[in-house]
Amino acid sequence: MGLENASFSKTEYDRRIAQTRSAMMQAGIEVLFVTDPSNQAWLTGYDGWSFYVHQGVILPLEGDPLWWGRIQDANGALRTVWMDDDHVLGYADRYIQSTTCHPMEDLASHLEARGYSTSRIGVEMENYYYSAKAHEVLFSELPNAVPVDATALVNWQRGVKSEEELVFIRKAAAISDKIIRIALDKAEPGMRKNELVADISHAGITGVGDDWGDYPAIVPLTPSGRDATAPHLTWNGNQMRTGEITFFELSGCYRRYHAPLCRSVFLGKPPQSMVDASIALTEGLEAGLEAARAGNRACDIANALNNALNKVGIDRGGRCGYPIGLSYPPDWGERTLSLRPTDETVLLPGMTFHFMPGLWLDDWGLETTETILITEAGPAQALCNVERKLFIKD
Amino acid sequence: MGLENASFSKTEYDRRIAQTRSAMMQAGIEVLFVTDPSNQAWLTGYDGWSFYVHQGVILPLEGDPLWWGRIQDANGALRTVWMDDDHVLGYADRYIQSTTCHPMEDLASHLEARGYSTSRIGVEMENYYYSAKAHEVLFSELPNAVPVDATALVNWQRGVKSEEELVFIRKAAAISDKIIRIALDKAEPGMRKNELVADISHAGITGVGDDWGDYPAIVPLTPSGRDATAPHLTWNGNQMRTGEITFFELSGCYRRYHAPLCRSVFLGKPPQSMVDASIALTEGLEAGLEAARAGNRACDIANALNNALNKVGIDRGGRCGYPIGLSYPPDWGERTLSLRPTDETVLLPGMTFHFMPGLWLDDWGLETTETILITEAGPAQALCNVERKLFIKD
Repeated sequence: MGLENASFSKTEYDRRIAQTRSAMMQAGIEVLFVTDPSNQAWLTGYDGWSFYVHQGVILPLEGDPLWWGRIQDANGALRTVWMDDDHVLGYADRYIQSTTCHPMEDLASHLEARGYSTSRIGVEMENYYYSAKAHEVLFSELPNAVPVDATALVNWQRGVKSEEELVFIRKAAAISDKIIRIALDKAEPGMRKNELVADISHAGITGVGDDWGDYPAIVPLTPSGRDATAPHLTWNGNQMRTGEITFFELSGCYRRYHAPLCRSVFLGKPPQSMVDASIALTEGLEAGLEAARAGNRACDIANALNNALNKVGIDRGGRCGYPIGLSYPPDWGERTLSLRPTDETVLLPGMTFHFMPGLWLDDWGLETTETILITEAGPAQALCNVERKLFIKD
Repeated sequence: MGLENASFSKTEYDRRIAQTRSAMMQAGIEVLFVTDPSNQAWLTGYDGWSFYVHQGVILPLEGDPLWWGRIQDANGALRTVWMDDDHVLGYADRYIQSTTCHPMEDLASHLEARGYSTSRIGVEMENYYYSAKAHEVLFSELPNAVPVDATALVNWQRGVKSEEELVFIRKAAAISDKIIRIALDKAEPGMRKNELVADISHAGITGVGDDWGDYPAIVPLTPSGRDATAPHLTWNGNQMRTGEITFFELSGCYRRYHAPLCRSVFLGKPPQSMVDASIALTEGLEAGLEAARAGNRACDIANALNNALNKVGIDRGGRCGYPIGLSYPPDWGERTLSLRPTDETVLLPGMTFHFMPGLWLDDWGLETTETILITEAGPAQALCNVERKLFIKD
């Protein structure tokens, strides 16, 4: 298919591959097998819901990358990757969910044919789509190769966003604004949660103007009351009720790029402790944005937040954010650094984070968060535009 | 929380656990660690979008199972599993996406404390959520334990559905009917694909009457024209056009249970070859339903289908279906048997399949499929009710 179908310019893909190769050389990796769907898309443009079978990108130190996957999905690769058609490799359908053969046998034969049977091969050991079995089969087929753990090697290259990527993330942020407002507007006693999520999803996929909405890597999280003490429960058909808080953890998605945003709404008159917590949370977010400057460290954001929360007696614990951008289910985080007191990673202009200090307490939960961009100078910029507070509908 | 929050009766969970233990004993497994979110839910009721971090169910040969996961998600377990609260174990947030420690260290310490440090421990080697790294860490922490590959051990127990489960699948099927009809009704030249998917998603989550819709394990697949030569491309913002075929691969979802259904629509007058293929496909589906009888084998369905397709010169290759039921992303299949000529698994009453003979040809693609139930006697029952043909809007 070539570049006319890709999301980004050739310059952008060249940059990505050059950066990744530099990291490969530093790790002594001669060929990299990339399983993470986000990393595959970032390197080649591949886009399809086929990550439930084994597939990946083979990146040598020279030449264009190769996309490898199930034969029927090779058709999807021909429609989405920027490389020439001869850089798409398909394996036979008989390997799919078979008990007698494994797709990694096919991958091994390709690596062997290309001269990598004794090479140092990078694999993403900690990834949803690189199973324990896949690892076992690949290296039992290539007994003289040396596995090198390349977990997050590509992910780390994705941390600083290009201008092209920021255009996508800003479009996602505009969709996030839209869907959070819809959630806040429509929340009312008697509203069934699934009907509210139906409206949120409809608005998210419709998008904003010409910017159509893609599927977010996490479905809408919208728990109420005691369910909001847990961060990851999904919806049901219950009605919203007076006297309950509900948080909305949502993200717009534009061509796989995300900008998560959370707000909370209380139906009725909230207890003072909740109001106090929400005010402290807003102060903590603002202190964190001030600390989120190029040259500062990830922990500086977490510490600024925690200082504000400690003032009202909340000891949050846990991390309060993670890098975001291009992603596929089941996670919209990049899985590299974390915003937490122990992480001393230096912040660079162009990094984007979901600054996510969710509060999950014994009886209720509250989320007010921002997608933020580290700028050249000054505090971080919040990419969404919804008032930073607990919304109250009395 | 206990049983009042669970999806099923105690009798149903007892049956599931007894079956699984019987399979464990046959495999010589003393304790099973279940990673697959569908298997976790099937055994304990756990339901949340938290499978992007390490979590699982520990099933010993005696006593209730234990749910183990991130501390903040333990709150979600307390809200969803049927076991007593002391059967929920949470690990500290510092393990999350850390480069210095791994959650499997915590799991290992629990297994050791329970006397399993030299046991035969079953793990799902081929599963999205059991990474190569997780396996490496778990058994380096338990050097005297013996790993046993328990891939699909629980999945196989899920094959025959109980009456309680069939109630859920029929509700999902009613939602599938609704959303396929909406897709077929609204498809027209000029309709933007994302807007159509927005309507489909809205209807699916709204559900049917009191039966609210859950998120399906695969997003709507709705490619048109040449994009329909690939089975797994997702949508974009392009307009539908006269002269193009579009297939809709969708599933309603009721409390995590699925009933996938596919239909295709041609806008304009389709070429005769496409009409012929669609007629042969319908004949093949009907022949397959006739062959899908208790006591016959999985391959009998595939062969019946292929005979009908061969008559019009289509040699499909690939499998034509898989078991379905309870599922989480990224796949709504159960990953056990396959409907294909080489699979001789005997069909049993209560098995449910997505009979899925998609055609992905050089220039176009066509999908007409059914969710089917193997009955006590006679041919399989299709659970959805949409006319089995290529829809044409001229």
